[in-house]
Amino acid sequence: MQFYQKEIQLPVFNRGYHLITNILLEALPELNKIKIGQFQAFIKHTSASLTINENADPTVRMDFESHINKMIPENMPYYKHDYEGADDMPAHIKSSMLGCQVQIPITQGKLNVGTWQGIYIGEHRNYGGRRTLVLTAFGI
Amino acid sequence: MQFYQKEIQLPVFNRGYHLITNILLEALPELNKIKIGQFQAFIKHTSASLTINENADPTVRMDFESHINKMIPENMPYYKHDYEGADDMPAHIKSSMLGCQVQIPITQGKLNVGTWQGIYIGEHRNYGGRRTLVLTAFGI
Amino acid sequence: MQFYQKEIQLPVFNRGYHLITNILLEALPELNKIKIGQFQAFIKHTSASLTINENADPTVRMDFESHINKMIPENMPYYKHDYEGADDMPAHIKSSMLGCQVQIPITQGKLNVGTWQGIYIGEHRNYGGRRTLVLTAFGI
Repeated sequence: MQFYQKEIQLPVFNRGYHLITNILLEALPELNKIKIGQFQAFIKHTSASLTINENADPTVRMDFESHINKMIPENMPYYKHDYEGADDMPAHIKSSMLGCQVQIPITQGKLNVGTWQGIYIGEHRNYGGRRTLVLTAFGI
Repeated sequence: MQFYQKEIQLPVFNRGYHLITNILLEALPELNKIKIGQFQAFIKHTSASLTINENADPTVRMDFESHINKMIPENMPYYKHDYEGADDMPAHIKSSMLGCQVQIPITQGKLNVGTWQGIYIGEHRNYGGRRTLVLTAFGI
Repeated sequence: MQFYQKEIQLPVFNRGYHLITNILLEALPELNKIKIGQFQAFIKHTSASLTINENADPTVRMDFESHINKMIPENMPYYKHDYEGADDMPAHIKSSMLGCQVQIPITQGKLNVGTWQGIYIGEHRNYGGRRTLVLTAFGI
């Protein structure tokens, strides 16, 4: 049984959705040693998210931002948690809707994902700063 | 390799979102023995959910209830599954949108979460009763 | 420590939500050998999803389709990613909202789920074709 874990800080990302697959793979090269296992990325924040989606066309990430802003808008009259800015409460809801972690099968030393799958960070704050992730890989 | 598992029943919670991090940690103290690993809480129901979000200001949990009720309302004219009460079908959709499990890295015997992250139960029924969870921790 | 993994192709499903619990269990019978562990199903696509919900009344799955189509509609004026058909961009958003994987505790050789819980595939395309899944089970 192998178990690897590492904490990393991402660069600052603008509000929106961004591909981070390569950053994560470079940060945990020991993943290559695992024949069958799982990889997890976990974000230690409640106003950003991790999800898996289309890794080729940047307009998909733009449409994520447009539509998820519409589903979970700013300035709803019933929001009580408003003292951290209009973007804060929607950011919390987006984080729980999309999730704060991805868990992916490892096969023969690689993430066993589809051709079009990449890992996104959803940065839901206007100025979120650097985000901290815990990467864990385990298996045989 | 260590593997611990336990099934627990939560106290009854009102409809809404509630912090349960401490209840879970007290139920599975063996988590302290794991240096690198993962912890999972899984809820055995389809009208409640588990998610991770802000653990300090109770108005965040109130705003979750307000806005998610608006995204997934009761009494939509196209709902066919209505014989268990108006709160039932929205509860099912909320459960799948938020998810029925959280999977969290363990580092040096502790959940490796951010300062502001706590585990929420989302109770989506008006009278959901006691909910059963399966807690699993594993690692080296 | 035991670790089993298998890649499978599902039959073609119509757009909507479908129970696949039995297909998955039959594909990975080694799950029966695990006393304490976890099972994961991971879908290698970005326009379909996996989630856990009510396994008895088919109207729940119909209401999922009706309401999630309303939350994430086709032909929004701000969608830029439209060259793969009107159903494609909503399918991507649905996939991230519901998730591309389920991770379930194993207890005494069985999935430790509630009586009413089943595993759904959400097929979000009109003609999605056969979908590929990676099944992983591990434990002691």
